[in-house]
Amino acid sequence: MDELALWQRYQDWLYRHEDLGLYLDISRIRFDDAFVNQMLPKFAKAFDDMAALENGAIANPDENRMVGHYWLRDPDRAPSAALKQDILSTLQDIKTFTQQVHTGALYPPGQEKFTDLLCIGIGGSALGPQFVSQALTTDQPPLTAHFIDNTDPAGIDRVLNRLGDRLATTLVIVTSKSGGTPETRNAMVEVQHRFDTMGLHFAKQAVAVTGIDSNLEKVAKSQGWLGTFPMHGWVGGRTSELSAVGLLPAALEGIDIIAILQGAKVMDAATRVADLHQNPAAMLALSWYYVGEGHGLKDMVLLPYKDSLALFSRYLQQLVMESLGKERDLDGNVVNQGIAVYGNKGSTDQHAYVQQLREGVNNFFVTFIEVLQDRQGDSIPIDQGATAGDFLNGFLLGTRQALFENQRDSITITVPNVTPAIVGALIALYERAVGLYASLVNINAYHQPGVEAGKKAAAGILDLQSKAIAAVQNTSHPITIKELAARIGAEKDIETLYQILRHLDANQRHIQLSGSLTQLDQLQVMSQP
Amino acid sequence: MDELALWQRYQDWLYRHEDLGLYLDISRIRFDDAFVNQMLPKFAKAFDDMAALENGAIANPDENRMVGHYWLRDPDRAPSAALKQDILSTLQDIKTFTQQVHTGALYPPGQEKFTDLLCIGIGGSALGPQFVSQALTTDQPPLTAHFIDNTDPAGIDRVLNRLGDRLATTLVIVTSKSGGTPETRNAMVEVQHRFDTMGLHFAKQAVAVTGIDSNLEKVAKSQGWLGTFPMHGWVGGRTSELSAVGLLPAALEGIDIIAILQGAKVMDAATRVADLHQNPAAMLALSWYYVGEGHGLKDMVLLPYKDSLALFSRYLQQLVMESLGKERDLDGNVVNQGIAVYGNKGSTDQHAYVQQLREGVNNFFVTFIEVLQDRQGDSIPIDQGATAGDFLNGFLLGTRQALFENQRDSITITVPNVTPAIVGALIALYERAVGLYASLVNINAYHQPGVEAGKKAAAGILDLQSKAIAAVQNTSHPITIKELAARIGAEKDIETLYQILRHLDANQRHIQLSGSLTQLDQLQVMSQP
Repeated sequence: MDELALWQRYQDWLYRHEDLGLYLDISRIRFDDAFVNQMLPKFAKAFDDMAALENGAIANPDENRMVGHYWLRDPDRAPSAALKQDILSTLQDIKTFTQQVHTGALYPPGQEKFTDLLCIGIGGSALGPQFVSQALTTDQPPLTAHFIDNTDPAGIDRVLNRLGDRLATTLVIVTSKSGGTPETRNAMVEVQHRFDTMGLHFAKQAVAVTGIDSNLEKVAKSQGWLGTFPMHGWVGGRTSELSAVGLLPAALEGIDIIAILQGAKVMDAATRVADLHQNPAAMLALSWYYVGEGHGLKDMVLLPYKDSLALFSRYLQQLVMESLGKERDLDGNVVNQGIAVYGNKGSTDQHAYVQQLREGVNNFFVTFIEVLQDRQGDSIPIDQGATAGDFLNGFLLGTRQALFENQRDSITITVPNVTPAIVGALIALYERAVGLYASLVNINAYHQPGVEAGKKAAAGILDLQSKAIAAVQNTSHPITIKELAARIGAEKDIETLYQILRHLDANQRHIQLSGSLTQLDQLQVMSQP
Repeated sequence: MDELALWQRYQDWLYRHEDLGLYLDISRIRFDDAFVNQMLPKFAKAFDDMAALENGAIANPDENRMVGHYWLRDPDRAPSAALKQDILSTLQDIKTFTQQVHTGALYPPGQEKFTDLLCIGIGGSALGPQFVSQALTTDQPPLTAHFIDNTDPAGIDRVLNRLGDRLATTLVIVTSKSGGTPETRNAMVEVQHRFDTMGLHFAKQAVAVTGIDSNLEKVAKSQGWLGTFPMHGWVGGRTSELSAVGLLPAALEGIDIIAILQGAKVMDAATRVADLHQNPAAMLALSWYYVGEGHGLKDMVLLPYKDSLALFSRYLQQLVMESLGKERDLDGNVVNQGIAVYGNKGSTDQHAYVQQLREGVNNFFVTFIEVLQDRQGDSIPIDQGATAGDFLNGFLLGTRQALFENQRDSITITVPNVTPAIVGALIALYERAVGLYASLVNINAYHQPGVEAGKKAAAGILDLQSKAIAAVQNTSHPITIKELAARIGAEKDIETLYQILRHLDANQRHIQLSGSLTQLDQLQVMSQP
């Protein structure tokens, strides 16, 4: 295809959303009209599925749940008056609470105001808040956000040590639907312990975002926390950014959450259009299907050319991979679906892995995100009248062009700037694209059986650990790992047992290993003196 | 293979480095003895290639350069006395300079001491320092590091605005081999401009890490910067962490750089052993070759279960993908090599994309990094005697096991803790593994032609921009994009021209577009009034 034909193709497919000032260009995905026509029936079904979902159908059959994240930004669409009211009153509660914190009406014991925010949560309860914080906080936010998103003791210590005395003016948000997510629970217990050690009163500085009647809600209420905000069963973790999960921390950081919701609502309307050529989410799903042949054969590389969007790839990694990465389709066939997502930011990554993208294994497609406004205010010229922003734009355009010439496909999303409305719109765009793509490949995008399985596997390992510790403590002399395995009926788990013992020994906890660390069969296990 | 056979395989292949306390387990990569035997001749050649490289052979034929990063940590191996002396004196200069900064012998004009460090650099000049900073800085470092690793105006503003008045006590390191990398040069000019605006004296607070006689060195010397440190031609950007590029910022942050060098030296010795079974780098390269069939068919997913190692995946993304992602082999055949790398940290990522790893498209292998020591000091019990660290370990072991049961391969690296020596050893381990793998697939791991091509493409776009601005400024009435393209002889680049104009218009710079933004052929281009 020559340059002018490409220019025509570019114009033919260029999507423009007037109000948002957003463009989507899929002209560098090499599908042809025959492919598009062949996909139309699949899209007709996908649009129907989506309409049913928005009307409250059980779209997550495994968990027998409605899927309602679209209602959050347009409560009139909620399938019942009660749900609508619930959404609106939660939003009002967030506004009221935020105002109380910002004005100092709510304050930490013995202090004037809250200065910092510590968000404890993992997965869907962390990535959205982290992404939005990086994208949208101002240089001097009313509260500065910090995150604990793991059960790593050293990581928890680092966050708390760096907060130091400011913990006394830190508001803690614990986010967990069930309250039973171990990483979040562990981090909460560790943080509470630090509060105790420092003579602070955790309950007076904590709020929970959690399911109605969850264990966490009960704890928060019985201990007299500052408040609780709901996480509804019909909102999944990875689509919870525009529920209290994401809105509460964003509002506390001084971000305009109404504008985020409005941007998402506008994008929802645009992606509800049942016409492939007029629906940017459908155009994304079409492109993904084409490049990966409907089987995720190519990785999705995200390259926003804007530092503040660097976490978008991690946010999408979760949204896309957890939604689409499924063993079985809705009919029970083994399909091993998914699309791998990675990325960081341009042009930085041009000095890292873009070498491989240009020349190496062709197992990916790129999504460029272009932000038209370089900065607030004017720029100085740097080289022959060009500014730093001109260079950034030049790198994007040059890379897009060079990849295409090397037979590498790409999508380009162009936005006017990084505002709350645009961030809301981007989130909504990808939520819908993922939903439509899931219909195209006939999978449930709204469950995560592998995550549950992972939790169970870990519980089994902790159980084995308990048994091992108990058995060793009941033993008066050193025994081999094999003997220990036999005593606790874990002959088949001997390797795991060894690994557990190695970890306990390294932390001087109950267990001591002696002997050569490469002669595993002869290692002696004993109780720590 | 049943559990006991697996346990035997685990023991047979478990690599242990006594001094470092490091283990490597490749038992969950499903190669068999026949495969290993078949690879032995390739490894014999790879070991020979590596020995020649270490002795100063031209290992980067495209650039006619020696590859000397191994000499940095064992200067006795440098191929000449002059090179050895150069390495040693640079190290001494770094120590002396750091001591002067820490003691306040060197200080910013009118201030007592430097408090912050601003590192300007991109790619190899950013990722290593960022990774090491996150992995090793203490909670109260002597200087707090900040990074500008892009030419994004808004990103530069954010770093500088958050530094605020502390810019007066900030030491700036500009790192660029040639001094001509546009992102770094642009960021430096922007930072200098901010210094000027604030009435500060940039030269009195800046040092350069750059090539001998580079433009940047000349500028630094003529302006009287605080110092310059060398970037040698025989050290590539992505292997420069243990040169002044990485050692200077690390030392200033209070990190023990001698221990980093020592850890790398010890690992270099271990990975120099010309025996596949006794060489952990060779075992990694073997594993990569097996899972990807020597063509990068599987992505490398990095999962360190330790927050402080979260940037290791981005560091390796550069090291692996820029080194291995090559169009042609050393004989000139088109091979499109490479291995895609992504990852973040466990168990956090188990709540993001691990769903797909467990169940979805099987296009990857995982490298787990296990850190045995949970934290400094004791842990509180959280649930049935288990600590937060027990959970973290349980998640790792459970995930490794579940992936294997689902036919997904993995490697596990176990280290005692995250110390300077271990970080040095991990860097050295992967540098060597990449070098050996490059020999196995017969490519030059030490050049990056695609990066150079990207710079040229961007230069072409900035050139087109200059021409377009000049032509529009010479036009008294609005013209279409097509007319403009014709005037500057850019008919074939009309799409790029449109995109350049759109960006200029959005920033109110010289160009104004009018008309419907979806009727591109009818857009009117005029000079901004």
